[in-house]
Amino acid sequence: MTTQELLKTVKAAAPALAEATTAQKNQALLAMAAALEANCDEILTANRRDVAAAQGHIAPVMIDRLALSRQRVLDMAEGVRQVAALPDPVGRVRRQVVRPNGMTIDQVGVAMGVVAIIYESRPNVTSDAAALALKAGSACVLRGGKEAFASSKAIVSAMQAGLETAGLPAELIGLVEDTTRNSATELMQAVGLVDLLIPRGGAGLIRAVTENAKVPCIQTGTGICHVYVDKAADLSMALRIVENAKTSRPSVCNAEEVLLVHEAVAAEFLPRLQKRLVDDRAADGKVPVELRLCPRAAEIIPGESAGELDFDTEFLDYILAVKVVDSLDEAIAHIAQHSTGHSEAIVTADEQAAARFTRLVDSAAVYVNCSTRFTDGGEFGLGCEMGISTQKLHARGPMGLEELCTYKYVIHGNGQVR
Amino acid sequence: MTTQELLKTVKAAAPALAEATTAQKNQALLAMAAALEANCDEILTANRRDVAAAQGHIAPVMIDRLALSRQRVLDMAEGVRQVAALPDPVGRVRRQVVRPNGMTIDQVGVAMGVVAIIYESRPNVTSDAAALALKAGSACVLRGGKEAFASSKAIVSAMQAGLETAGLPAELIGLVEDTTRNSATELMQAVGLVDLLIPRGGAGLIRAVTENAKVPCIQTGTGICHVYVDKAADLSMALRIVENAKTSRPSVCNAEEVLLVHEAVAAEFLPRLQKRLVDDRAADGKVPVELRLCPRAAEIIPGESAGELDFDTEFLDYILAVKVVDSLDEAIAHIAQHSTGHSEAIVTADEQAAARFTRLVDSAAVYVNCSTRFTDGGEFGLGCEMGISTQKLHARGPMGLEELCTYKYVIHGNGQVR
Repeated sequence: MTTQELLKTVKAAAPALAEATTAQKNQALLAMAAALEANCDEILTANRRDVAAAQGHIAPVMIDRLALSRQRVLDMAEGVRQVAALPDPVGRVRRQVVRPNGMTIDQVGVAMGVVAIIYESRPNVTSDAAALALKAGSACVLRGGKEAFASSKAIVSAMQAGLETAGLPAELIGLVEDTTRNSATELMQAVGLVDLLIPRGGAGLIRAVTENAKVPCIQTGTGICHVYVDKAADLSMALRIVENAKTSRPSVCNAEEVLLVHEAVAAEFLPRLQKRLVDDRAADGKVPVELRLCPRAAEIIPGESAGELDFDTEFLDYILAVKVVDSLDEAIAHIAQHSTGHSEAIVTADEQAAARFTRLVDSAAVYVNCSTRFTDGGEFGLGCEMGISTQKLHARGPMGLEELCTYKYVIHGNGQVR
Repeated sequence: MTTQELLKTVKAAAPALAEATTAQKNQALLAMAAALEANCDEILTANRRDVAAAQGHIAPVMIDRLALSRQRVLDMAEGVRQVAALPDPVGRVRRQVVRPNGMTIDQVGVAMGVVAIIYESRPNVTSDAAALALKAGSACVLRGGKEAFASSKAIVSAMQAGLETAGLPAELIGLVEDTTRNSATELMQAVGLVDLLIPRGGAGLIRAVTENAKVPCIQTGTGICHVYVDKAADLSMALRIVENAKTSRPSVCNAEEVLLVHEAVAAEFLPRLQKRLVDDRAADGKVPVELRLCPRAAEIIPGESAGELDFDTEFLDYILAVKVVDSLDEAIAHIAQHSTGHSEAIVTADEQAAARFTRLVDSAAVYVNCSTRFTDGGEFGLGCEMGISTQKLHARGPMGLEELCTYKYVIHGNGQVR
């Protein structure tokens, strides 16, 4: 099926979901989870084919993301069940006003219609995205990476079987067969067929979307996150936060990439940082962090000199760019110039400094005395997420079920005219 | 100044507003209102120049929209004062969660940054848009129609003087000097300089935005609005609603363009409609409504035959397309195919029919037993509006101050790591 044909098929199926009750949607999700488990062998066989074909062509870390195990498939099914347990955002009255003329105006959560997702090689995104879209009342079009195509197809087939068991059309979930750039561009330009496009990927994909998209989009995921250690910081707390933000999971978008340190505490803090992130980690058999230092930091501790691009790079690795700043305002200005608008933190005991930082830093999540790693749907209490929005329109930060929906106004009267 | 230079100047000024308090913003708005009054003569002189140049080039109704009087200038100033009196959306905590680990997560309303507005020849939009953007914490770039340029320039000069009186930079309001299509395209593509673009205009502008925009946009204003008279309608109420929706102000986007009538009541309702909208209005010296009838309606009452495009046209005039349908579901399907997603109404005493209509009609505002003319920021209790969004992303329906803002998450902890 061509991408256009697929889009039309999915769009034609979407109204069936608009009529489905919460119970029907949940029943379908449980059937999808059961079908993933029942088809575990087929999914693993397809995945082994993908992994074999990818060996030698992509980095080992990517192979690891691609490879499934029986446990990973069971986890995918469990993830779908968790979505079934979340409250239904569709039909929820978000706001109600009774007007002086007696009209009642309800702002009601409603489905987008058709949600398209462009993603890379993690097969679990296929089931996560489909489950979230379905619960949010939307049909979905999935366009995964070519390395994972056989796996995605097996996963989608299982979920489609689950949908049919529950009496809903299989066409509510569509998998794009063309995994070249052409299909991504087609999705970006499918005006009237795609109500919301969520690109999940690197800076290249995001740039392509900005250039080419004609459908509504939410850009997700690029995170050059900063931690600023203020002159009034508790330095032991700062050390703990920086270590966590940098090393607990360096490959994710909410990991710290840049450390800013106030010059008043740099001479004390940086040697402790160097000991904790480099020496202690090496002694413990952990990967030491590579520090890339501005000239002033390099006068205090050993490390690489930071190059021109080091303050504008999402390393996604055990690398940290370090810069000494003269003031809170210099830190804020640096962030304004170099951040991707994802997550930034200040460590300080000075409430005024914290208030100024949170007011002037224009990012999706701004932290005081905690790690940037908390920018996550689960950690925010949303129960799930479809990605982290780094744009300002519609949704910012973790996108939960509510953010996958839109709303409409429903107005009841008894003959009012204007 | 070129458009690029203007955009950079406005963007550089925007952070001054992020630091301004509610009191400072309100003081600036009051100073802007006073400056509009103080410069009334200059504004009227400029406006007379615009009107003289436009005579003979644009329709009389457009001249009427363009022309200012002393009273209209005073009304503009009063409009700015009303914006000052509205609650400040910036800094409002929209949602707060305390997590089990002790972190407090606030979702806080924040400014967009730079808002650009493309509009046509009504000079009052210049002051309305600037006042709303400012109150929402954003600098603004205004690109009005060429017919109104001298007027807009005089209005902006007055408002800039007001800003400076209040200690804020004049550059928070920028007027684009180039009134050709080039500047509109430049605004649509000013990635990094425009945080939100609001095009206010006809179908041509909206199409151009869909094709060319690379910055976040909110499409406003095209309304092919439907009223459906159900078989269970109170026909006197239906008549009152249809008359109001069609004739109270035909030139606006929330006016009715299409009437759908259930076949079970058509024989009774249509003759009463014809009497009320055509004969009675003519007898009263009012403009009679031109009815454009589907074949079944034409068997019941006299009128023009509806042409192919009459069910897809925003007439903005005393014209109403009329179609007889077999069922509620046919009405819903007709709306799905022909509506612009603005406002639709059902007139019925049947609660189940009303519930089905409000659930399945996918428009910004869906009415039961009242006129579509209520889709308006003031009528919805928002106190103001920057237009009616007909898209699903970010905002739907009337855009008040809250919808001109975005949000960020501000998280307070005491050393939490993940």
